[in-house]
Amino acid sequence: MTERKIPLSQVQFLLDESRIYAEEVLRRQLESYNPIDLAEVLKDLEDEGKVRLFLSLGPEARALVLDETDAESRETILASLDVPAISDVVEEMPPDEGADILQQLPEEKGQEVLGEVEQDLAEELSELTRYGKDTAGGMMTTDFVEVDVAATVGEALQKVREEEEAEHVSEVYALDARGRLRGTVDIKTLLERPPDERVSVAMTSDPLSVALDTDQEDVANLVNKYNLPALPVVDVEHVMKGVITLDDVLDVIDEEVDEDMLRIAGTLSRDLVSVPIRKKYVNRLPFLFTTFVGGILTIVIQYSFRFTTDQLVAITFFIPIINGLAGNVGLQSSTIMVRGFATGEIGLDRIHKLLPIEATTGALIGLTFGVLCGVVTAVFAGALNSTALLGVVVGVSLAAATTMASVIGTAVPAFCERVGIDPAVSAGPFIVTLLDTAALLVYLGFATALLQFLVR
Amino acid sequence: MTERKIPLSQVQFLLDESRIYAEEVLRRQLESYNPIDLAEVLKDLEDEGKVRLFLSLGPEARALVLDETDAESRETILASLDVPAISDVVEEMPPDEGADILQQLPEEKGQEVLGEVEQDLAEELSELTRYGKDTAGGMMTTDFVEVDVAATVGEALQKVREEEEAEHVSEVYALDARGRLRGTVDIKTLLERPPDERVSVAMTSDPLSVALDTDQEDVANLVNKYNLPALPVVDVEHVMKGVITLDDVLDVIDEEVDEDMLRIAGTLSRDLVSVPIRKKYVNRLPFLFTTFVGGILTIVIQYSFRFTTDQLVAITFFIPIINGLAGNVGLQSSTIMVRGFATGEIGLDRIHKLLPIEATTGALIGLTFGVLCGVVTAVFAGALNSTALLGVVVGVSLAAATTMASVIGTAVPAFCERVGIDPAVSAGPFIVTLLDTAALLVYLGFATALLQFLVR
Repeated sequence: MTERKIPLSQVQFLLDESRIYAEEVLRRQLESYNPIDLAEVLKDLEDEGKVRLFLSLGPEARALVLDETDAESRETILASLDVPAISDVVEEMPPDEGADILQQLPEEKGQEVLGEVEQDLAEELSELTRYGKDTAGGMMTTDFVEVDVAATVGEALQKVREEEEAEHVSEVYALDARGRLRGTVDIKTLLERPPDERVSVAMTSDPLSVALDTDQEDVANLVNKYNLPALPVVDVEHVMKGVITLDDVLDVIDEEVDEDMLRIAGTLSRDLVSVPIRKKYVNRLPFLFTTFVGGILTIVIQYSFRFTTDQLVAITFFIPIINGLAGNVGLQSSTIMVRGFATGEIGLDRIHKLLPIEATTGALIGLTFGVLCGVVTAVFAGALNSTALLGVVVGVSLAAATTMASVIGTAVPAFCERVGIDPAVSAGPFIVTLLDTAALLVYLGFATALLQFLVR
Repeated sequence: MTERKIPLSQVQFLLDESRIYAEEVLRRQLESYNPIDLAEVLKDLEDEGKVRLFLSLGPEARALVLDETDAESRETILASLDVPAISDVVEEMPPDEGADILQQLPEEKGQEVLGEVEQDLAEELSELTRYGKDTAGGMMTTDFVEVDVAATVGEALQKVREEEEAEHVSEVYALDARGRLRGTVDIKTLLERPPDERVSVAMTSDPLSVALDTDQEDVANLVNKYNLPALPVVDVEHVMKGVITLDDVLDVIDEEVDEDMLRIAGTLSRDLVSVPIRKKYVNRLPFLFTTFVGGILTIVIQYSFRFTTDQLVAITFFIPIINGLAGNVGLQSSTIMVRGFATGEIGLDRIHKLLPIEATTGALIGLTFGVLCGVVTAVFAGALNSTALLGVVVGVSLAAATTMASVIGTAVPAFCERVGIDPAVSAGPFIVTLLDTAALLVYLGFATALLQFLVR
């Protein structure tokens, strides 16, 4: 089997047909598809279609589709469901996904759902909803296989057999009498050991774990770095509260990358999925406003520096190339910083090493293009009614601007990281605008100082 | 346990100490650390230190450190090792990682290593090195638990016990007599079923699999989309050749994201890790050369359009704001395309829907800032020795440029994807340069057409 792409038209046809055929026939037809594929198709349906498709599914498929589809569709569907229907879906979901649904509901409706589901689940859910969505507590599932650390291997295997909810388990967690995490052992190891051996002998003691409030990005980096099959989550007493599985980590990585990339480009991550034009507009406007203000600033600067000597109009010709190169060098440095912080590749403790490296790189790049552009300018200075000295002014300004760009592009995201602002917010339009302004001041300032020697 | 950060100074100290103490003492000290953390520290050591640290480790730790450290360090270490030493390390590694090492060696040295390792492993390795590094064949490991589809559950569990190499196994693969993949079953299910039940009854038939030459990005998206614990790889006859595990997928995702983000910013992904300044310079120069050529073009365009009327110098004041906004809008659209293609969120079949949405968004953004900037310009036109009509010219040009930017920012990456070029290559400096040039032509062309009405 390879991936099954369901054509939208086919689902649309089935939905239209169901006005004629019985509900049950439609349901059986739709159930032949993988719910994850249906979740994909659902994104492209009209609101009415989303709800009808959803209602045509069985309870298990409903849970999967609701979890896998996009936020827009989820909202539409949830708004159309009454409390008992939502409760049924939530009961089919792993507790972590159920908690996410609860957090999307209006406060009151969420409480009603909690009142409707089984007592045990309600308690788990209301505990899970207390943790921040972007923390280990918010990511973890409470379905895992636990065994007493004093138990035998045979008893542990029996536990694995009995645990109904936990899927794709490869790890069993050994807890002491107070529920504290003492070790972990994978099922393969359990199978290899004699049934009467103690779990405490077979297990790896003191496994890596994270606290409930660990940031989801740190969780993803830990799992990635140490190639962990799953990561246990413990409270301050080291009592095991849940486990983070790799598929949750993959989702978090996707989310964090979407956020970083689109913020650097100057928009929000939800812009990626099919949202109405109105929302796309609203997402992007604030970032572009930074660019706009920067643009107005360049006008004011040029105006205040304006060269009354007719022949020196040529000076302004070089503004785009200086701004363009400085902006690009700044984007290179700042993107490296944002990505490095996100993956843990760059730590704040390494900035003092990185800054001089980036600055030198920027300076070398600036020298290269400064000399190139300076020579070209000097050669054609005559045609521009200027002296060859214009080449020196342009070249030196270009070099200065790109050096500055690499310093600012490295330092500003590092500063943001230090004070707890997402560095990606600073890395895009904001830094480019800052650089445009700074580069313009350097260039026009320098040109003004040497103005009398530039006139031919 | 939480993450263990090893201070660089501590390792440096140990290495220096070993000149006094016996090798064995150093080895035991270093072995108290997690090799993955040592691999991290190793990146920051001098070449000599990298090699000495490596040589102080036991065989298993050597294999892990070599796999987990960065490409630069790996190269340094491999260059210092003789064929028997490399063979020992390769024998400790899972075959997929061993194959990666072989591919990093010079052809001849690689052949010598193959001659040195066990016959079985040599065959596996030379098969693995035939697959492209960025394909499913290049990602997969050949260590997996297979069982005859006609076997019983009890026999399958025995197979799990006996398989030495495969770690963190949760899945067993059922193959027919010709080695073709027929189904998959997880160990937990095996434990739950009666030992004399047939595997063919317990298994999920016809599981999702990929071909040997499937692109690694597609592999990652499949695993991510369907939340798969592992993904089997089959040849054209559907014979199972290997399995891709989640930790390999995480590495691929990291690699692909690094590549996309840094290409948009205009550099190569290896720029992220600590490389010498010389390499950083070489990585970035080609991208910046695009920006440079674009900058020269803006000079030529401004020169050929130059306004002889002294009062109209003001026209050039507006070039940075128009270029800035057009560039930023283009970056927004193109980043969305690159990310959407990478995650599979956007398919080529949806371009015809997306293009008008992006274009309309760009037009609305352009109208907003066009009106804003136009009004401001018109009000201050007097101070700029121009008529209020300049506001109309600036506003309309701004609106046209941003609309064009969103169309080009959407269409160019889509075109690249269609013809098989990495869209990320087009999305950064190339599109911005294209937009700068196009926007300038629109603006200056329009201003020239209305020139006589702009003079006050």
